[in-house]
Amino acid sequence: MKDLPFSQSEFDRRIKRTRAAMEARGIELMFITDPSNQHWLTAYDGWSFYVHQGVLLSLDGPPLWWGRYMDMLGGRRTCWMEDAQILGYGDHYVQSTEHHPMQDLAAHIRDMGLGAARIGVEMENYYYSAKAHAVLIDELPDADIVDATALVNWQRLVKSDEEIAFLRRAARISDKVVQTAIDRAEPGVRKNDLVADILHAGITGVDEDWGDYPAILPLTPSGEDATAAHLTWNGRLMQTGEATFFELSGVFRRYHAPLCRTVFLGTPPDDMKRAEAAQIEGIEAGLEAARAGNRTCDIANAFMEVLGRYGIERSGRMGYSIGVSYPPDWGERTASIRSEDETVLKPGMAFHFMPALWMESWGLETTETILIRPDGPAEPLCTAPRKLFVKD
Amino acid sequence: MKDLPFSQSEFDRRIKRTRAAMEARGIELMFITDPSNQHWLTAYDGWSFYVHQGVLLSLDGPPLWWGRYMDMLGGRRTCWMEDAQILGYGDHYVQSTEHHPMQDLAAHIRDMGLGAARIGVEMENYYYSAKAHAVLIDELPDADIVDATALVNWQRLVKSDEEIAFLRRAARISDKVVQTAIDRAEPGVRKNDLVADILHAGITGVDEDWGDYPAILPLTPSGEDATAAHLTWNGRLMQTGEATFFELSGVFRRYHAPLCRTVFLGTPPDDMKRAEAAQIEGIEAGLEAARAGNRTCDIANAFMEVLGRYGIERSGRMGYSIGVSYPPDWGERTASIRSEDETVLKPGMAFHFMPALWMESWGLETTETILIRPDGPAEPLCTAPRKLFVKD
Repeated sequence: MKDLPFSQSEFDRRIKRTRAAMEARGIELMFITDPSNQHWLTAYDGWSFYVHQGVLLSLDGPPLWWGRYMDMLGGRRTCWMEDAQILGYGDHYVQSTEHHPMQDLAAHIRDMGLGAARIGVEMENYYYSAKAHAVLIDELPDADIVDATALVNWQRLVKSDEEIAFLRRAARISDKVVQTAIDRAEPGVRKNDLVADILHAGITGVDEDWGDYPAILPLTPSGEDATAAHLTWNGRLMQTGEATFFELSGVFRRYHAPLCRTVFLGTPPDDMKRAEAAQIEGIEAGLEAARAGNRTCDIANAFMEVLGRYGIERSGRMGYSIGVSYPPDWGERTASIRSEDETVLKPGMAFHFMPALWMESWGLETTETILIRPDGPAEPLCTAPRKLFVKD
Repeated sequence: MKDLPFSQSEFDRRIKRTRAAMEARGIELMFITDPSNQHWLTAYDGWSFYVHQGVLLSLDGPPLWWGRYMDMLGGRRTCWMEDAQILGYGDHYVQSTEHHPMQDLAAHIRDMGLGAARIGVEMENYYYSAKAHAVLIDELPDADIVDATALVNWQRLVKSDEEIAFLRRAARISDKVVQTAIDRAEPGVRKNDLVADILHAGITGVDEDWGDYPAILPLTPSGEDATAAHLTWNGRLMQTGEATFFELSGVFRRYHAPLCRTVFLGTPPDDMKRAEAAQIEGIEAGLEAARAGNRTCDIANAFMEVLGRYGIERSGRMGYSIGVSYPPDWGERTASIRSEDETVLKPGMAFHFMPALWMESWGLETTETILIRPDGPAEPLCTAPRKLFVKD
């Protein structure tokens, strides 16, 4: 009855990789709270990450999924492991000032005989609070609890063939979503009505590929609002003379292929046309540099070199690794495309190459989800034309 | 140009309440990371909570909003404070292994002359990681950093008239959203297509009230999937003989009015009909008990008393305070409707009264967003008929 997204050999591969990374750091047990990591290792899926939950992975045996009792039932329906490997804690632990779920987790760890083990936790994660950490330390005085943030995330960097197939299916949905935004953007359209159509397009999906929820909801600011990167929508009408950027992603079974395009209603100003030319030429240069054996910084530097020739200033990150994700962020939180990041590119890595330009009075986003190939430049997974869309 | 959701006197009221709570605990400075608390105090709004950001509130002067440089621009467009009170940190701090944004925050705190102050932080919050706490402690060795989780949240419990007006507008949208779900549920409909219509209905909103994004995306499980509380959708077809519960909320400018109903396709089994009768009678008893001067546990106990008469077992929480919220949770994380919670009810409190029944082979959710009145039983803010919807 279970509808697992991947083969058992794929899950086995992931666990093997994770254990190798644990052994290299002398970690005997990982407590994994990042929902994307939980899903990647066990297939657990549910909107339950707002309470404490996670995966316990030791150096042998199957992983254990642990969460609230009512979510244990969801775990039994979604995880690949047997029911006995899905653990639930009582509701009296939930958002209580007297009890904390980590007390229950610590008891399980002691029962596993690992109360004095070297335990890795993800200290830099939304779903591992400062309080959770304090309680765990308190409950396991003999354990050596170490920060293993992103240990699992780094194992996700190179995608398997099964994962690449999912990214391609997500990319088809992204193309549909972005095309919907471009088609529907008109002067006088209420922004929220446009966003409703965008989400509708993404979730209906393409053919038999049903759409999942994006880890970031549509970012669609217009005009001066587009100088800020992360404003969501409102009920204002779209206007002639404004650019609107669409930062969107199709999602196939938690896999994202983000894609951004910008629409100008009317006649764009010369500086925006010039920025468009620079951005597109820069992306082409970045794709050429995005080759196995090169580094992430080479992509950023290739883009910046073009931008420099156009005399446009930009600083900051211009992309990040992507794949499976849950709210509030669709990045993998490992390799970034930026000048100080020297991650060596390998076939199967996937990035959102995102050299947006947020300028003084407008924003211009044209981006690609790219796959590093064994040879040659990176492959953009989407097919939307790479340009500023002008509707006058 | 700013489109602030509330009057300045409303923001002033909120800050005054928060400061009184700080003074009662001897806290000189709060660092507030919960996005709902940030919004409630400053009107900051953006999908930027996936990087470190927050509000610094001392005992005098306006609050400071602090975040990533590119989100500072969003802060200047959304917060009620002057630009000088909106602070930004450089992109080299973002998801870096060398730098941490809390280093920048600590420098600001020292500049304020509060490096040795008693500082409250929200240790139990998604957006205040164990790592952030460790860095802050390290950077401010002379400070007394104390856990002030939910200090601000508790100030939000009693809603002002301005807030109640927002809840009523959200409730109108909730009614539309739930009606859409009920109308569209049919055998043979793909679940994701139904969810696309549900989101579309919520975001288009009602009349001039545009719909905002819900802090929890639609939960719509059918049949045995509905025994688990938090599964999201898939592409399976709805089937005769199955119940589907819809856990949804309309949202007006971040204010939520959650509303759940259940649809049965075909003829429901007798035990579900009996549970429906118990649930509805229990909700009526709960509403009667939800009076100013009573306690939250009185609502839970009134419901459970009815359930006991029907011989149905249930444990756990059956509701929580609601209002403004951001992903991943729409609860306020303060008072709960449960037998061990003794919060005294006051006029203006609002709860999602949520006595769902997750049984052996199906789930039944019928819920209300309720407002505590000066006199008499609580007012349900939505108007959807309170029953199991049967479509045969």
